[in-house]
Amino acid sequence: MSRLKPIEYADASPRVRAVFDDIKRCRDVEDVNNFWKYLAHDPAGLERTWESIKQVMAEGALSALVKEMMYVAVSVTNGCGYCIASHTAGARKAGMTDAMFAELMAVVGMANETNRLVNGYRVPIDAAFEN
Amino acid sequence: MSRLKPIEYADASPRVRAVFDDIKRCRDVEDVNNFWKYLAHDPAGLERTWESIKQVMAEGALSALVKEMMYVAVSVTNGCGYCIASHTAGARKAGMTDAMFAELMAVVGMANETNRLVNGYRVPIDAAFEN
Amino acid sequence: MSRLKPIEYADASPRVRAVFDDIKRCRDVEDVNNFWKYLAHDPAGLERTWESIKQVMAEGALSALVKEMMYVAVSVTNGCGYCIASHTAGARKAGMTDAMFAELMAVVGMANETNRLVNGYRVPIDAAFEN
Amino acid sequence: MSRLKPIEYADASPRVRAVFDDIKRCRDVEDVNNFWKYLAHDPAGLERTWESIKQVMAEGALSALVKEMMYVAVSVTNGCGYCIASHTAGARKAGMTDAMFAELMAVVGMANETNRLVNGYRVPIDAAFEN
Amino acid sequence: MSRLKPIEYADASPRVRAVFDDIKRCRDVEDVNNFWKYLAHDPAGLERTWESIKQVMAEGALSALVKEMMYVAVSVTNGCGYCIASHTAGARKAGMTDAMFAELMAVVGMANETNRLVNGYRVPIDAAFEN
Amino acid sequence: MSRLKPIEYADASPRVRAVFDDIKRCRDVEDVNNFWKYLAHDPAGLERTWESIKQVMAEGALSALVKEMMYVAVSVTNGCGYCIASHTAGARKAGMTDAMFAELMAVVGMANETNRLVNGYRVPIDAAFEN
Repeated sequence: MSRLKPIEYADASPRVRAVFDDIKRCRDVEDVNNFWKYLAHDPAGLERTWESIKQVMAEGALSALVKEMMYVAVSVTNGCGYCIASHTAGARKAGMTDAMFAELMAVVGMANETNRLVNGYRVPIDAAFEN
Repeated sequence: MSRLKPIEYADASPRVRAVFDDIKRCRDVEDVNNFWKYLAHDPAGLERTWESIKQVMAEGALSALVKEMMYVAVSVTNGCGYCIASHTAGARKAGMTDAMFAELMAVVGMANETNRLVNGYRVPIDAAFEN
Repeated sequence: MSRLKPIEYADASPRVRAVFDDIKRCRDVEDVNNFWKYLAHDPAGLERTWESIKQVMAEGALSALVKEMMYVAVSVTNGCGYCIASHTAGARKAGMTDAMFAELMAVVGMANETNRLVNGYRVPIDAAFEN
Repeated sequence: MSRLKPIEYADASPRVRAVFDDIKRCRDVEDVNNFWKYLAHDPAGLERTWESIKQVMAEGALSALVKEMMYVAVSVTNGCGYCIASHTAGARKAGMTDAMFAELMAVVGMANETNRLVNGYRVPIDAAFEN
Repeated sequence: MSRLKPIEYADASPRVRAVFDDIKRCRDVEDVNNFWKYLAHDPAGLERTWESIKQVMAEGALSALVKEMMYVAVSVTNGCGYCIASHTAGARKAGMTDAMFAELMAVVGMANETNRLVNGYRVPIDAAFEN
Repeated sequence: MSRLKPIEYADASPRVRAVFDDIKRCRDVEDVNNFWKYLAHDPAGLERTWESIKQVMAEGALSALVKEMMYVAVSVTNGCGYCIASHTAGARKAGMTDAMFAELMAVVGMANETNRLVNGYRVPIDAAFEN
């Protein structure tokens, strides 16, 4: 069996259920999304990842909306279909409008383009950027 | 000669100078940074890229600060040293504080981590994210 | 016709059949997997790739199990769905347990995260690592 | 100032020093390497990352040596110079021989090659790998 | 609603229709492909991207065939399924034979392999390549 | 010792020297470039890689010039500084002009941009591209 199945709440250990319960409470959802049901195969990793996500994605110097959009920017760059879908939904929920999404995509596209122009032209870093 | 040299203003064609002048005016800088001096080997590409950057990076539904931070997020994900340096400087200029930078890095790191967890666990997209 | 079809054994040239026969014998399987049926459109590439895979994936200083897990680590990082599926199956066959898989994923996730933290913080290599 | 400076022990806050002390004790080194000195600009991230690394890289179902080599495999795939240098050193310390390193590189190279052959030939996943 | 729907010609604004008309005329097709129908959610981005594509992909110092094959090479390296499908079709239309495709894939595979061998062995650039 | 040193001809084993001699003869150069001197730490890998490169990069359905430019396209996309430098030099030697290089870079940039637009807009593959 090379492909794991998701672990549903009913079949989860108490340790996994505790994380699922916290996710449901924090996000006010009835069930956790698939990511957590698969990661539940590694209870220690599940706990660690959820604690990290809670800490990292919380409102802080940056808003939750900006953080969700950055998550989308990275996931689009890496081509991770699941994370694009889930964090686009998360960004929408946090207030991303159609206009914001279009601008986000345009920036991500340009950055991926100019990253490669820089590589190909072998552009040295300006002294002004080294300080 | 496999490595191109930067084209300085004094040696640039009128077509290239026109772009350099517009960059200097728009950004209020005395000289353009290396990226443009190398891209100047392709005058049509220089014009096109500068017009695109002006359009894409302008204040809009997203602030210039958020756009610069997204540029950093993509460049860090791709490992483009030049763009990390130049757009971190750009984000600083647009108001990014140390605390914002730390949170940006934390989000980029987490996204790159969970993008791979999703790949490895082969997590299918939830129906809720498909609509 | 932009999409190639797999080349089945019955339709294969003698040159391709010779490789398919060797794969089936070495792996003790009844049929080769899709990768080889598509690569069969390039008989020279098929031969070269199979000879390379045999040499590279053989037991040596590293065990076949460790090599299969490394293949998974790379494929997960690149987001190659086919290779994740096939080499996870290969690793399972070579003895990878659920616990090993969970740890493998955790390491791959952390490495992808810290790779980007290093990029973003622009961390210079310690002198101790240069020797 | 767009480029951060490393935070040395002498200049670190008590919170950062506590992490540095734990790293030095766990690894039996006199000073922490640059990665930690830069990440110290984000004390919460420093604590979280160090706790995660300790948990993830510990001996478990996989040996510390195998884990370090996987870290190298990912870092080489992503082209992260710092992590290649530091985790190659870590793998050496954990027992990686020249022969192991050569085999690791060969596997990483092959995986990166066949990941793309699969993409380009648009190979569908075999039913056998879906279970 | 996190997933956008394609914008068909019948539902498009005059601004979007003007781009669609130009694509259909330039490419002599009855309808534009999905990429443009989604990008139509960002009319300014649609115009900009189409103008850029027209300029960049035109016959010049490099033939349209070579340019389409390079597009495939990049898309295969990035693992972008849509672009692999669409630009392989484009390259076929421009004259790519089965033999050319096989050689293209072999080069892309080798490049992805040796890119990583270079990273892992930390090979310094020869002085001869710096001039 | 975590960093390997290049193996010079004078210090090489007969097996390594045989490959070096073949490289020097085929390319008509006085010395091999650094890539081969580092890969010489893995004599079997050195032989295999050189044989593969010779086969893959030979004139065929695609010219050596086009193949070198594709190598550059992939290396620029991956951000491999060494391979960008060495294969740009190779492409120059094979006849790449400044105008060709500029167009190559423009195509690579656009492809990297639109690859991400496709990811972000979650564009489904047109039925026409599936046949």
